[in-house]
Amino acid sequence: HKIAAARVVRHATEGASVRIKYCTGCRWMLRSAYFAQEILSTFDDGSVREVTLAPQYASGGEWVVEVGEEVVWDRRRDGGFPQVPELKQRIRDVVAPDQHLGHSDTTTLR
Amino acid sequence: HKIAAARVVRHATEGASVRIKYCTGCRWMLRSAYFAQEILSTFDDGSVREVTLAPQYASGGEWVVEVGEEVVWDRRRDGGFPQVPELKQRIRDVVAPDQHLGHSDTTTLR
Repeated sequence: HKIAAARVVRHATEGASVRIKYCTGCRWMLRSAYFAQEILSTFDDGSVREVTLAPQYASGGEWVVEVGEEVVWDRRRDGGFPQVPELKQRIRDVVAPDQHLGHSDTTTLR
Repeated sequence: HKIAAARVVRHATEGASVRIKYCTGCRWMLRSAYFAQEILSTFDDGSVREVTLAPQYASGGEWVVEVGEEVVWDRRRDGGFPQVPELKQRIRDVVAPDQHLGHSDTTTLR
């Protein structure tokens, strides 16, 4: 899903910090690492400067994605896990609102 | 490589922060994500509270693993990439020195 917009690589300190908090008891580490790789692949122009995987030991079912201070996905609030394009759109809306995500922007695609 | 020591799950804020800085031009994101998953699997008792993947856009060949402020692996300094057990031992020496890593502690194994 290459980004169609002109690729301007921002300086590493400018990009957003994404954090994936996941319940360890639920064995969601691999799934979270997969989402992290998708995010780092799509936002490879410096708009995302880092993705942090943050295990939550005392949590029963928590799965949250934060971009800076903003919660862009909360499993409980949003009724489960996102499709990858959905999560990318929400991250894009925070880090690079004018950026087109190619296929990921085709809302019908799941 | 389950940890043989008694499993005491530390409170999430106590654990160490691990950061993997990788050269994006060298396409090392997937390799870095793999190491992150190995680290999160082995240090699943709270001794590592987060692992951050930090793409370096302007870097020619940088691959560095930091535990807090300490550089436990530097591709240039250490002559290439680590074997997984090697990296785990260096992280363990910082986050939980008295912790035995099972097979990962058998130095002959590669």
